Amino acid sequence: MKPRDTRVKPGSRVSLADWHTDGDAFVGKDKAASMARLDDDRVRLEELQELLYAEGKHRLLVVLQAMDTAGKDSTIRHVFRGVDPLGVRVANFGVPSTHELRHDYLWRVHPHVPASGEIAIFNRSHYEDVLVPRVNGAIGHAECERRYRQINDFERMLSETGTTIRKFYLHISKDEQKKRLEARRDTPKKRWKFQPGDLAVRAQWDDYRAAYDALLSATSTRHAPWHVVPADDKLARNLIVSALLIEALEGLDMRYPEPVAGVAGTPII
Amino acid sequence: MKPRDTRVKPGSRVSLADWHTDGDAFVGKDKAASMARLDDDRVRLEELQELLYAEGKHRLLVVLQAMDTAGKDSTIRHVFRGVDPLGVRVANFGVPSTHELRHDYLWRVHPHVPASGEIAIFNRSHYEDVLVPRVNGAIGHAECERRYRQINDFERMLSETGTTIRKFYLHISKDEQKKRLEARRDTPKKRWKFQPGDLAVRAQWDDYRAAYDALLSATSTRHAPWHVVPADDKLARNLIVSALLIEALEGLDMRYPEPVAGVAGTPII
Repeated sequence: MKPRDTRVKPGSRVSLADWHTDGDAFVGKDKAASMARLDDDRVRLEELQELLYAEGKHRLLVVLQAMDTAGKDSTIRHVFRGVDPLGVRVANFGVPSTHELRHDYLWRVHPHVPASGEIAIFNRSHYEDVLVPRVNGAIGHAECERRYRQINDFERMLSETGTTIRKFYLHISKDEQKKRLEARRDTPKKRWKFQPGDLAVRAQWDDYRAAYDALLSATSTRHAPWHVVPADDKLARNLIVSALLIEALEGLDMRYPEPVAGVAGTPII
Repeated sequence: MKPRDTRVKPGSRVSLADWHTDGDAFVGKDKAASMARLDDDRVRLEELQELLYAEGKHRLLVVLQAMDTAGKDSTIRHVFRGVDPLGVRVANFGVPSTHELRHDYLWRVHPHVPASGEIAIFNRSHYEDVLVPRVNGAIGHAECERRYRQINDFERMLSETGTTIRKFYLHISKDEQKKRLEARRDTPKKRWKFQPGDLAVRAQWDDYRAAYDALLSATSTRHAPWHVVPADDKLARNLIVSALLIEALEGLDMRYPEPVAGVAGTPII
């Protein structure tokens, strides 16, 4: 098992079987203390977002990918609760429409990247295009490799033009997914989330895991690193994502802009 | 002076001073015959666009760049007159808005690339971002080189995902521009086109030419070649652009799709 570091080292070969799905190595046993830490993190994230927006210089792109039920929606809800919605936009990428398929696969994501001062969260992303078609055999090995390179080029350009990128793979075990699907099936208030297609995708678990191993190996770069976040425990998952985003934003060395000269002496009538 | 070939060989160093601005080497002296040829070309372009649309497989991106008055608008009007507007979209890129500047410079162009079966014409383009800021000193040499590479990566991705790209630099002489600006100034019906800024840009003629030399050298690739089109003579310019687009579309080996099975026997009630 890997140590506490969640970051996929650029150029390394990932086998998700070697990575924790439980969060024990990352958070303590004291649940109340962990929840208090998450509250503190939210406050800090809110401050940093305000500074990001005020300075209007940097952009933060957060990419979330995961197997079904790993908690992408829930992570967004818990980590970004309290952050000004004006400065955070979530873009959901589902099955591409006929219209979208008539374009290159980066066409539908590019309009949603963050502007200066913004945080954008991709709830699924262009990475779906090296997952579903790969598993279904719609694209072969060579095309998949080509897409990795195209994605790396695209993200490098975004990074070079002022966007900080953090990508999170929310990592759950097959057993944990079973429990969550059963809960959806058996809990009246959760049943609407249960899609017949979920089981078909679960049946391809090993194929998707192999596709994730390959994409995490190929597309974790210095400019746009992947983090494998243990997600069997929701609180640990949220704490890890918060901490990594705070670290990324603090690394930008942001400052509030200077007031316009003369403003200080302007009478308020 | 270069021979009849207008294509910038990938990897070659361009000096526009070596390229024709007059079209004499490309079209004959018989003006009536040339005009008849342009009519024929329009019919052929219309047929090819219909086939492109019907097959719904390929995409054609046409990029037009030029010094002021070289005739980008006029080229679009004359070459595409008669082509179904449903299958051709023109995207104009002016001075970036404040909102656009809050994104990477490819963000505003990507949504306008052609869908399958479409022709898109960029009237100015992402190449403005290696012209104006370079000449004005807003970006240095290293950043400019980086943008060339980013643009090549972007266009390579478009090409690999099914887009045929042809880029045209409409090449006029400084004398011809003088004549056209004078005509705008002195012709009441053309005067609205005369912008005070035009003269400031003309004063930077040598800087813009150097910027074009550099970009044509750096971004003419096998997948997205530049053509330097002599544009002092409007008819020659239009004939050359038409011929190159027809050649590009004919190279796609397109076919009308097969009718759906059973359609032949379906009674029309």
